[in-house]
Amino acid sequence: MSSHPTFSPTDLARALDGLHRDLRILGPDALAGRHPGEDPANLDARVMAQPASTEAAAALISWCRANHVAIVPQGGLSGLVGGSVSRAGEVILSSARLNRVIAIRAEEETVEVGSGVTLEALQAALAPHGLTTGIDLGSRGSATIGGMVSTNAGGILAFRNGVMRHQILGLEVVLPTGEVLSDMTRVVKVSAGPDLKQLFIGSEGAFGFVTRVVLRVEPIRPHRSVALLGVANAARALQVAACLRRHPTLQLEAAEMMWPRYVRDHASLKGFDLSWREEDAAVLLVEVSGDSADAATAQLEEALADLWEEADLKGGIVAQTSDQARRFWDLREDSGFYFAAFPNAPSFDVSMPPSSLDVYVADVTARLAAIGNGLDAYVYGHIADGNLHIAIAAPGLLPIDLKALAETAVYAGITSSGGSFSAEHGVGLDKRLAYLAHVDPVKQALARQIKVMLDPVMLFNPGKAPF
Amino acid sequence: MSSHPTFSPTDLARALDGLHRDLRILGPDALAGRHPGEDPANLDARVMAQPASTEAAAALISWCRANHVAIVPQGGLSGLVGGSVSRAGEVILSSARLNRVIAIRAEEETVEVGSGVTLEALQAALAPHGLTTGIDLGSRGSATIGGMVSTNAGGILAFRNGVMRHQILGLEVVLPTGEVLSDMTRVVKVSAGPDLKQLFIGSEGAFGFVTRVVLRVEPIRPHRSVALLGVANAARALQVAACLRRHPTLQLEAAEMMWPRYVRDHASLKGFDLSWREEDAAVLLVEVSGDSADAATAQLEEALADLWEEADLKGGIVAQTSDQARRFWDLREDSGFYFAAFPNAPSFDVSMPPSSLDVYVADVTARLAAIGNGLDAYVYGHIADGNLHIAIAAPGLLPIDLKALAETAVYAGITSSGGSFSAEHGVGLDKRLAYLAHVDPVKQALARQIKVMLDPVMLFNPGKAPF
Repeated sequence: MSSHPTFSPTDLARALDGLHRDLRILGPDALAGRHPGEDPANLDARVMAQPASTEAAAALISWCRANHVAIVPQGGLSGLVGGSVSRAGEVILSSARLNRVIAIRAEEETVEVGSGVTLEALQAALAPHGLTTGIDLGSRGSATIGGMVSTNAGGILAFRNGVMRHQILGLEVVLPTGEVLSDMTRVVKVSAGPDLKQLFIGSEGAFGFVTRVVLRVEPIRPHRSVALLGVANAARALQVAACLRRHPTLQLEAAEMMWPRYVRDHASLKGFDLSWREEDAAVLLVEVSGDSADAATAQLEEALADLWEEADLKGGIVAQTSDQARRFWDLREDSGFYFAAFPNAPSFDVSMPPSSLDVYVADVTARLAAIGNGLDAYVYGHIADGNLHIAIAAPGLLPIDLKALAETAVYAGITSSGGSFSAEHGVGLDKRLAYLAHVDPVKQALARQIKVMLDPVMLFNPGKAPF
Repeated sequence: MSSHPTFSPTDLARALDGLHRDLRILGPDALAGRHPGEDPANLDARVMAQPASTEAAAALISWCRANHVAIVPQGGLSGLVGGSVSRAGEVILSSARLNRVIAIRAEEETVEVGSGVTLEALQAALAPHGLTTGIDLGSRGSATIGGMVSTNAGGILAFRNGVMRHQILGLEVVLPTGEVLSDMTRVVKVSAGPDLKQLFIGSEGAFGFVTRVVLRVEPIRPHRSVALLGVANAARALQVAACLRRHPTLQLEAAEMMWPRYVRDHASLKGFDLSWREEDAAVLLVEVSGDSADAATAQLEEALADLWEEADLKGGIVAQTSDQARRFWDLREDSGFYFAAFPNAPSFDVSMPPSSLDVYVADVTARLAAIGNGLDAYVYGHIADGNLHIAIAAPGLLPIDLKALAETAVYAGITSSGGSFSAEHGVGLDKRLAYLAHVDPVKQALARQIKVMLDPVMLFNPGKAPF
């Protein structure tokens, strides 16, 4: 597209103004000072189109195609890999006004939503019906359903419910041609030819713009109890999780593990009281639901007492108030604390078969130590599905060669062990080299072919996905 | 491919002989008298290639591409829509020798298998590890894992575990180019670019040949109890299923409903004792698992007694022996009984949101009656996921125009209600017109584009999938 004249952001905003009655255009002035979300470059295009209907999105896309203007789809800007970064000359296509909960069908346990609805807003809309989403994640306040489709989001409940792909029953997408692909089924069983909506799940805005989604939802289980437990290793944590999953009256809602360095540094930075924990133990957060909050707490305490010896627990504490439960969760969810000490800490998001985690973490730690320069890792994550987040702690600014060595240390053996270098954050800008290194070359070539087929002029999210 | 000379089956068998050391070729003599499975035309090509390795499959595919010979992938020949039908001049590519259970990783709850392993063989291999598949269906003895991938099989457990797509963690496929796409992850969380293995799930052999599969598996629950219940309608059946799903110690394993005409005619043909049932009630089969067979039976009896008034049950009987349980299941699984009376009964396989089933069945029945000619429906299926099988009972041979009217009666309103004209059987040969009528045209066009991209010479399963 480089042979075509590029528009300045101001000219572009002016050209788009009035294109469709359901389309709001925000130019450089309107966007000035707006928070860019997780990546400072997200709003660099300085022009944002906010359709309030599928038709308006299609009109914008058709215009962009005719005028050789690239499009960057954006949801809640909570992405962690630069997948929504934009540049001057491009148009941001925001789902912000596709924010209607269109239909809650309680008797079907399905919901139909615009792609711009945030996860938290959807959970709030479902609650009066006794329902909630089968997926949950820390950035629920900003993450949109469309963004979660585009990254095939995972989160806290994947060990039980699978990932976003498993929640999606129907999808509507505007293709790079401006055509609308509509596959809004509301049933779990469909074998009616190739299921092409799968292409748009996890492809990070490279293939089209998601406008509407049908999701499975499930009964809400509001009565919770949360505990922090000292554990010797991942195997012990998995033992606790497995035991709670088999519990006759409790349901396991979360099993989040934090390795010792993460726990120690986070606690000392924030003043968390960890006096109950045996020194150097890792910490497992478990949340369960039960018939009442009191019953959940009592039954959790009893279950943990039964497990104490067998799982070699290194201390533990069950939250007695919802405030305390919230503080327990902060230890896990406010995970960016390490950026205070290590502002450029490279961070990773990997999956491994859960039973391999102890060996994997030991190997990564040893490989980082062998690099020298004081490299070490903060490790934490969703233990029951094998998804670890790993941030590299290193004194000072990490030089590029050390960063590459650290990446090698983290990714070594992942693919051959059946894991993935990207579990739930996506590829975006930041993981492109890893994609090239770790994804089957035949699959990469096929992805490029499909990109060229769907989007021959590279209209959607150029430079981002690995095409 | 019509401009190229076609091989006779005998010449083709001779030409393929010795192509690869892991490739067995069966020609017309070897195939003579072999049972063709569910469709009498399945083996009409009279040449079958049986690779014992991915490399041998790739060698066969490359040869066929170079020599303009079309390929029909075949698994267990249990497909019901003609998706495996072959013709002279084509080669059947059979998964029969890709029948190894390659690795059972009990601690991961995953299994890696060749695509030719039958569901029953896999279940038998998993049992000593205390594991079983998260998917089950009546044709388990012949259906292969590869065939279940290709049709995105559903079955009995989909209401709880989702369909085949939700069980698949990894996949290896030989593409029409002869290249091997290998994506053998063993984790549930992967967001590493577009998940292109999804293309090969449910595309019925049109895009490539599945050679290896990684599936999630789950702990076996061997202690079962089965009951037949009289129910007034689907709403009551769903009420029973929902209640058993919430039961603190039982787990619901099946909820299969049979509408009154199905029950009456099947029972009278086979001599099933239904004296416990109030006249004209539909019948719901429920199976539960518990801590022991006795406990499951006792708790099921108790749960049903509690439900009796509330769910307006019209009689019920809990199996007291495993033989009796088997007979209960026969009432449901030996569903082809109606072909004895109506050999050409057109049959359908639809999904609807479960809460719409009563209205839907009443509407279909009324529309069939309005056609006249004594048309009526046998209706039965997997009630909790809304998947109904419908066979049209009509005296005599059904003329083509009545068949078309019956199809219209069954499919009316399905798509607009969020359902699907094909739930779990696929499209194959038999449902192509329905595919053209009921699938979003933009999606159809995209499917054709992808077919042309992956398989420009239409090597795979020509004439079958709707391309």
